[in-house]
Amino acid sequence: MASSDQDVTLLSFWASPFSMRAKLALLLKGIEHEDLPQDLGNKSKILLESNPVHKKVPVLIHKGKPIAESAIIVHYIDEVWPGTSPLLPKDAFLRAEHRFWTDFIDKKLLDCLMRFVHGNDKDAANEEFIANCVLLEGALTKLGSEQEGPFFGGASFSFLDVMLAPYAPGVVGVMGLKHASEEQCPRLHKFFEAVSEHPAAKGALPPVEKLKELIRNK
Amino acid sequence: MASSDQDVTLLSFWASPFSMRAKLALLLKGIEHEDLPQDLGNKSKILLESNPVHKKVPVLIHKGKPIAESAIIVHYIDEVWPGTSPLLPKDAFLRAEHRFWTDFIDKKLLDCLMRFVHGNDKDAANEEFIANCVLLEGALTKLGSEQEGPFFGGASFSFLDVMLAPYAPGVVGVMGLKHASEEQCPRLHKFFEAVSEHPAAKGALPPVEKLKELIRNK
Repeated sequence: MASSDQDVTLLSFWASPFSMRAKLALLLKGIEHEDLPQDLGNKSKILLESNPVHKKVPVLIHKGKPIAESAIIVHYIDEVWPGTSPLLPKDAFLRAEHRFWTDFIDKKLLDCLMRFVHGNDKDAANEEFIANCVLLEGALTKLGSEQEGPFFGGASFSFLDVMLAPYAPGVVGVMGLKHASEEQCPRLHKFFEAVSEHPAAKGALPPVEKLKELIRNK
Repeated sequence: MASSDQDVTLLSFWASPFSMRAKLALLLKGIEHEDLPQDLGNKSKILLESNPVHKKVPVLIHKGKPIAESAIIVHYIDEVWPGTSPLLPKDAFLRAEHRFWTDFIDKKLLDCLMRFVHGNDKDAANEEFIANCVLLEGALTKLGSEQEGPFFGGASFSFLDVMLAPYAPGVVGVMGLKHASEEQCPRLHKFFEAVSEHPAAKGALPPVEKLKELIRNK
């Protein structure tokens, strides 16, 4: 476990991809923390008080101070606990690339997913999702050395790896969305395979069966 | 001017609030740079090549490497030229707050502005814009010491100040949007007044008359 004076609490919902990111960063860095699972149908006082603007999970509370929004939480975790599993690269240009593709995931992949689930033209949304995966394949080829390992960070998880991990085929697949094929995105496939086998990701991403059950019971 | 081996080019459009942010950060830090104004109706080869994903301004090109998206550009500028006019605070929790409210501006204020310009219910969009300004007033009261100065950064521009500056009443007012009143948001009014008088902001934000002319000729 990383340094001792933690006092870290994570308000989360296990099936939220944004919660998975925060949990994954905590596990990668071995930060001792308390989980406070949230009932999103009946929001708790602590959630409403710690994220009064968006009233959403995840919220990280560190020494009494709340931090909301998954990318901001992972930035914070990396800045406060830089030693173990550093996530953002040291080079400013590479940091910009990690932030650019995070923003891309949060705008484009999420938009396609939402339109697939709630919109009328599911085929178009799925097609666009795959086209965006192809762009991410290009980014992975550019940023992550294939010789070093399957991640954007090479041999180990980096910031962008944490941001993309919850878009694993198993997770988005439970909603019926078709992921890019191995032929379309060979590097991404290796990435998601490595994610699925990583101990921290196993702790942060729920089993596909559990997600399926949630959807069946909705 | 800050250090010499710059080789900095800014692809921008003068009436784009996102371009204004990048220009403002460059001017605040005194970074020598070349401006390459872009014709958004007829996109240049250099814009399409340097931002192939979004094909949008602003793009900062530093030593041949392109960086896109205004908040990411300002992060980059602050990391590469940290000396003059530091923008992000050193404290990790305060950095998270600056990122949180930047995200809030980019999601909420922008969404209201877009709905006001393109949507059907202009009154509702304007009302929501003002409600969001009231939330920003609260953030300003929390983050910026009134004794020290009018900015989120106290006496001088910080990251969040750069992000919010282009939402000045004059700039959004040309579209017919009503800003929060001085009674509703006294601190924000002082902030925008200080912005309008700052030399760097004068160089980055266009005169209101010029914006009005652009809208008249549309």
